Amino acid sequence: MFMHNKKLQYTVRVQESNPQLATLMLEQFGGPQGELAAAMRYFTQALAEDDPGRKDLFFDIATEELSHLEIIGSIITMLNKGAKGELAEGMDEMAEMRNLTGNSTSQTQAILYGNGPALVNSSGVPWTAAYVDTIGEPTADLRSNIAAEARAKMVYERLINVTDDPGIKDALTFLMTREIAHQKAFEKALYSITPNFPPGKLPGHPDFTDVYYDMSHGGDVAASWNSGELWTSVSERELQAAVDGGDGSASVGLKKTEAAAVEAFAARTASAPDANPVTGAELGAGPGAGAVLR
Amino acid sequence: MFMHNKKLQYTVRVQESNPQLATLMLEQFGGPQGELAAAMRYFTQALAEDDPGRKDLFFDIATEELSHLEIIGSIITMLNKGAKGELAEGMDEMAEMRNLTGNSTSQTQAILYGNGPALVNSSGVPWTAAYVDTIGEPTADLRSNIAAEARAKMVYERLINVTDDPGIKDALTFLMTREIAHQKAFEKALYSITPNFPPGKLPGHPDFTDVYYDMSHGGDVAASWNSGELWTSVSERELQAAVDGGDGSASVGLKKTEAAAVEAFAARTASAPDANPVTGAELGAGPGAGAVLR
Amino acid sequence: MFMHNKKLQYTVRVQESNPQLATLMLEQFGGPQGELAAAMRYFTQALAEDDPGRKDLFFDIATEELSHLEIIGSIITMLNKGAKGELAEGMDEMAEMRNLTGNSTSQTQAILYGNGPALVNSSGVPWTAAYVDTIGEPTADLRSNIAAEARAKMVYERLINVTDDPGIKDALTFLMTREIAHQKAFEKALYSITPNFPPGKLPGHPDFTDVYYDMSHGGDVAASWNSGELWTSVSERELQAAVDGGDGSASVGLKKTEAAAVEAFAARTASAPDANPVTGAELGAGPGAGAVLR
Amino acid sequence: MFMHNKKLQYTVRVQESNPQLATLMLEQFGGPQGELAAAMRYFTQALAEDDPGRKDLFFDIATEELSHLEIIGSIITMLNKGAKGELAEGMDEMAEMRNLTGNSTSQTQAILYGNGPALVNSSGVPWTAAYVDTIGEPTADLRSNIAAEARAKMVYERLINVTDDPGIKDALTFLMTREIAHQKAFEKALYSITPNFPPGKLPGHPDFTDVYYDMSHGGDVAASWNSGELWTSVSERELQAAVDGGDGSASVGLKKTEAAAVEAFAARTASAPDANPVTGAELGAGPGAGAVLR
Amino acid sequence: MFMHNKKLQYTVRVQESNPQLATLMLEQFGGPQGELAAAMRYFTQALAEDDPGRKDLFFDIATEELSHLEIIGSIITMLNKGAKGELAEGMDEMAEMRNLTGNSTSQTQAILYGNGPALVNSSGVPWTAAYVDTIGEPTADLRSNIAAEARAKMVYERLINVTDDPGIKDALTFLMTREIAHQKAFEKALYSITPNFPPGKLPGHPDFTDVYYDMSHGGDVAASWNSGELWTSVSERELQAAVDGGDGSASVGLKKTEAAAVEAFAARTASAPDANPVTGAELGAGPGAGAVLR
Amino acid sequence: MFMHNKKLQYTVRVQESNPQLATLMLEQFGGPQGELAAAMRYFTQALAEDDPGRKDLFFDIATEELSHLEIIGSIITMLNKGAKGELAEGMDEMAEMRNLTGNSTSQTQAILYGNGPALVNSSGVPWTAAYVDTIGEPTADLRSNIAAEARAKMVYERLINVTDDPGIKDALTFLMTREIAHQKAFEKALYSITPNFPPGKLPGHPDFTDVYYDMSHGGDVAASWNSGELWTSVSERELQAAVDGGDGSASVGLKKTEAAAVEAFAARTASAPDANPVTGAELGAGPGAGAVLR
Repeated sequence: MFMHNKKLQYTVRVQESNPQLATLMLEQFGGPQGELAAAMRYFTQALAEDDPGRKDLFFDIATEELSHLEIIGSIITMLNKGAKGELAEGMDEMAEMRNLTGNSTSQTQAILYGNGPALVNSSGVPWTAAYVDTIGEPTADLRSNIAAEARAKMVYERLINVTDDPGIKDALTFLMTREIAHQKAFEKALYSITPNFPPGKLPGHPDFTDVYYDMSHGGDVAASWNSGELWTSVSERELQAAVDGGDGSASVGLKKTEAAAVEAFAARTASAPDANPVTGAELGAGPGAGAVLR
Repeated sequence: MFMHNKKLQYTVRVQESNPQLATLMLEQFGGPQGELAAAMRYFTQALAEDDPGRKDLFFDIATEELSHLEIIGSIITMLNKGAKGELAEGMDEMAEMRNLTGNSTSQTQAILYGNGPALVNSSGVPWTAAYVDTIGEPTADLRSNIAAEARAKMVYERLINVTDDPGIKDALTFLMTREIAHQKAFEKALYSITPNFPPGKLPGHPDFTDVYYDMSHGGDVAASWNSGELWTSVSERELQAAVDGGDGSASVGLKKTEAAAVEAFAARTASAPDANPVTGAELGAGPGAGAVLR
Repeated sequence: MFMHNKKLQYTVRVQESNPQLATLMLEQFGGPQGELAAAMRYFTQALAEDDPGRKDLFFDIATEELSHLEIIGSIITMLNKGAKGELAEGMDEMAEMRNLTGNSTSQTQAILYGNGPALVNSSGVPWTAAYVDTIGEPTADLRSNIAAEARAKMVYERLINVTDDPGIKDALTFLMTREIAHQKAFEKALYSITPNFPPGKLPGHPDFTDVYYDMSHGGDVAASWNSGELWTSVSERELQAAVDGGDGSASVGLKKTEAAAVEAFAARTASAPDANPVTGAELGAGPGAGAVLR
Repeated sequence: MFMHNKKLQYTVRVQESNPQLATLMLEQFGGPQGELAAAMRYFTQALAEDDPGRKDLFFDIATEELSHLEIIGSIITMLNKGAKGELAEGMDEMAEMRNLTGNSTSQTQAILYGNGPALVNSSGVPWTAAYVDTIGEPTADLRSNIAAEARAKMVYERLINVTDDPGIKDALTFLMTREIAHQKAFEKALYSITPNFPPGKLPGHPDFTDVYYDMSHGGDVAASWNSGELWTSVSERELQAAVDGGDGSASVGLKKTEAAAVEAFAARTASAPDANPVTGAELGAGPGAGAVLR
Repeated sequence: MFMHNKKLQYTVRVQESNPQLATLMLEQFGGPQGELAAAMRYFTQALAEDDPGRKDLFFDIATEELSHLEIIGSIITMLNKGAKGELAEGMDEMAEMRNLTGNSTSQTQAILYGNGPALVNSSGVPWTAAYVDTIGEPTADLRSNIAAEARAKMVYERLINVTDDPGIKDALTFLMTREIAHQKAFEKALYSITPNFPPGKLPGHPDFTDVYYDMSHGGDVAASWNSGELWTSVSERELQAAVDGGDGSASVGLKKTEAAAVEAFAARTASAPDANPVTGAELGAGPGAGAVLR
Repeated sequence: MFMHNKKLQYTVRVQESNPQLATLMLEQFGGPQGELAAAMRYFTQALAEDDPGRKDLFFDIATEELSHLEIIGSIITMLNKGAKGELAEGMDEMAEMRNLTGNSTSQTQAILYGNGPALVNSSGVPWTAAYVDTIGEPTADLRSNIAAEARAKMVYERLINVTDDPGIKDALTFLMTREIAHQKAFEKALYSITPNFPPGKLPGHPDFTDVYYDMSHGGDVAASWNSGELWTSVSERELQAAVDGGDGSASVGLKKTEAAAVEAFAARTASAPDANPVTGAELGAGPGAGAVLR
């Protein structure tokens, strides 16, 4: 069960209204690396988890992320507060409009959301659960969590770099730091499962676990990820194709009626490569067509 | 520059048509953990990367993932081949219909896509670039890649578990194994950057890096991620709120005109908590309303 | 600040595994009328709200909806629990597959999400913040909340109608009942603002506030919404067009250079209505074209 | 059957080209509260409705909303007309570019849509049927319609507040007024159904219909929505959890094979809470790691 | 202005309820090739069009497509009518449930939409304006319209192939035939513009207009689209790269401060290709790691 | 199998950093008419195609489009390169911020994507496979390809019109020209199938193939698409409705239990058109209600 207290986890002190800065902050409210994505990622993992330690961990951090969502949402609300009143009461219209039209997300925040915090990113794209990559296997999900915390840390770092207001900088630094702490916790949880690599139960096929396919030629660099005793590097194009030793084609066994249908379809839609038909483009190219078409 | 050869990287041998199995395979064609997502993840990283070794790595694996997209797309095409011909030529309609209506993604594959491979997942949800979580910082992106490979490995493992056809199992095992190899390569690349933790440039705030907030009570488990010398655990609710020592509120400095507008808005929309107004629900509850409303 | 306790708000007792019933329940987990949508709707309103009474109300109900999200998520988790273990451990594959392919959302839950609860609806469509219709004006938002509770109540009623398991029926009845209670609360809050109709500040234009345009002819029914002393009904087509008394056209003042550009564009793309050009379709219709094209 | 006449329902007179104002107007063309959403909401209700009076009402208003979509689309077309010609003919490039790059939605309207009206909102997000919340129960749908009209009224009010052009203000005032009239009509239709609360057929559970759970503490306000004779308010955390009298846990009956699979999965992925494993973050933190990790 | 008459453009006679067939029909209601997409495509073109003939054409067909949307929506409503009543009144629950869970879109239609017609495709994916490809240049838009009519014709053909009910077949045949007629009309309109190829104003670069790059080797077929006097075919890989005669690299002029920042970033994130660092995967691979990692 | 060489197909020379111009270029990277959409369109067609000539054509052009995606992505990377370094290293913050907040997509590129190329359009909307309209019938798909090339040509033309940098203009001209060449190739392939109109197998119904319904009155223009010997034009409203000669209604045969359920539902939700109920709006309109409501 969730509970709430109206005290924020971190006090929010904003110097002055600034709707355009608010649009930047949206990235951590309704953006792909934002706090709702984090909260939902860990909450869905907590529900499905049977391991008592990890269940506890996921609920702890999911709940903290919801509290962070509240902090970043409060920053956005404060930055928008002046504009909200002015728009709602129809004051200062023209100045407002000039600001609005300078940035499409700011304008959408005003016109559509009345300057309340909306679950969209800094381009106005609505949050989607497609951002949540929980798949229900802890050795994969914990790696996803580690990566997600690393990404969220970076977005906070960038927001700190473009902010001047010391109160906002303070709160963002707290939020950024917590992502570091969370990453550390998820790392501990991952390495407490042994073995955790490769994830899941099925082993890889030994013929292909240590092969590095050099698919992009030019500017090749030898490194620990493609050479040394761990790797067999395959550079020649011939050896990269049909690595199973087959002919590299795709085939299927068809029933007679299926085969007949496939053939009928092929015959009906067969192209005549030998023909050189007049085309619609040629009809449409007009008198000057020759130059264009040839 | 990309080039292509019509030989697949792995030969595809499918025993018989099976459109419903094809819908499962869609998960790795147009699904969030599928091969297009992988290819686009590494391709966008390759473009932005200046480090020659990592640029090479990202292009190598992006290109291989495109070749895997072709393999899984060929499996889907083979599984759908019989149904494609029959639908296109209007044969065996009723039997087909019964199959179609048994599974909504299968039916969409037939009616909308003519049984060609479509970039949707096994529920028919179109692929979206929202699945790609590249953010342009290698110490974060490499962790995202590691996690993505772990997830993709798991989805292949599950598909192998629900497949009977030995040729498909073979090809899926190859694809699954390559995810293991890719994860290994990305791990090498991550640990070749030192330091790589915390990602980015700004350090965390020392007051909050080692704190564990026990936000979810009940069933708590002490573990390496919340206790021991690395952590200060905070369980009491009072100490979890307003951790900066402030009052936990949100505030903003407003200009006079802004403050006036905010006040006007508040006055206009003030609620009267003391009133007990008759409501629309009460109007609508009808003669038996008393019981419902009280 | 949010807090959590691992006790659910309502005990969940599920009789037996049933992944297909789980897909139905997803509608209230990650669907448009589900608990996440409700929680986010009230949470965003709470953040932006300055009226102390309504702020309290929105936070109270937002927090309760999060607790309901946890209940419905727990039901889904229990219904999927058996399938989750079997898939993860590769047991009972063929039987599993047959179930999976019978319903595309069930199969996606297994293959993609490992039978954990995912924030998708019963068709597998990911939750989107486009479902949240908060616009930042309380007299509109409270009406949206009332409507949202009404819709959610209906979806629970339908789920109860298709469920057999008494423990699930119990929990769903609790959840359905809470939507009724919430609707009642939001109604009180709406009618505590006076006046609350029309919403906002600007009055309507008196010429058009009481007019009913009978745009669809045939089967007309006189009723309190289109006739009586409150309404002037306009049925004649002539009187429905250009109701401002103008000519019903659209016009704009253009600068000279703009007008010249518009004209140049028009000239370049002018169609020749008198021509009867041979078309690509005619080229393509083949020998039997006459019948088709004429 | 729909029919059309090229006279608009309201004459559109725009003073001068202004692509950035056009982007604001998009909110009512392809935005969530816009006219297409309204038209589709009522149109889908009209199709499914059997009650002759409501069917007539829904078709009347759906058709009028389509006519409003045409008006707002004509305003956008006029505001974009000059820019359209100039871009298409390659004139005035640099000045144009400077305008374009000042606002991302304006630029998308030009580059992608050629300055024609597109079904996107003021941030460029494509319209989605996820905005339509029709659920097929009139006592819920009519409440949704009432709320939708209230929201649309507000968006028009805001657009009027940021517009200077008297012709546009006129047309927007007409459109805003019609939302008021439609709300009135839908209210009449709702209250013509008795009873209409609670919506649907199943009654709530009497134990939970009148309870108010005070889930958010701090700043509590007593009001008609949480106290008085209508309500039993529950503030204590103990009494908010497991309100059915159970233990607040989630359980399911598993078959033996299911239970065995679940156990095997748990064993394979068990975490060792007592371990304090070295983690990847520790490897990656480099020589200065101690400070960061401890 | 749009008007409406409750007579359909084509009478709909459905033999019996069949919710699963209804899900197939959704493809032409809320699917990408369906009637809403068609109506919105032509409607947006009509608004922006200045050529009187084409404006008339686009409005005529947009309006007819809305009338077709009504026909297909009526078919869906009829197919769902029995299920709608039964679900709403809570009858026949278990039988209903079994049907529902057999097909996820059918179940969503019932639970979420109450068996009314919803603007989703046969997989339950909501309609999106991303399906509308109007770009505001008639020589391109008319080609898009021609293609769209061709696609819609095919989807109707497939629906006819999987339908048994003679009344539905009749109505679908009418709708399919109208797509043929519309394609013919759009072809006439395209070829009434001379020239119409290439679309737009800028000519292509003569060095690259007639070149065919044979990027995919193996199974090459000579045909009118890659050989003959119209084409210069380029097969050799060397000649396909850097076709401008440059070095095929990407470069940008940077200011000094930019260059310094880029260098600082490169230095901070440089990878050490010579290192062979121990990785997290190696930590995680456990005692049996050797085999896996090598 | 795909392969890669780090030489681009066309050398990219950018004069100076310009993140706002980069946002315009995104339209051809992750936009609906961009290179990923093109590549995926032809790639999915290639996989499903059995005709050897067309399979070759589709793979050739799909591969070239991937190479074009790389070129446009390289242009974006170069335009963002300076900003990327500065943001990552926290330099020049305030100047940067001012630029960022001027354009919401630019700001998202920086904050979310770290100035790497992201698969979004110029408004920041993520790429979706909903842009791919492959349906698996070559006579329809080739028309879709022709239209897609025409649209892409136009978007490149517009980008050239708003660009000043000669190196970018060069590369864009190459890319634009290739769309012309591809359109020509697809036209040849379409007309090599005879007949190719109407697409598919079923003929239209002769009664409706040549009819033109004049659904929009006012401003009618006689033209080759609605008059002449090819067409029977129907203008009268009576003759446009129920063109099958029926009554224009929709009907379905219901089983007795279904009919009873439908009736019960109708009775429960019947509206009373004769009533003039007091409504919530009337309650809410307050003392001045009379004027508003009447």
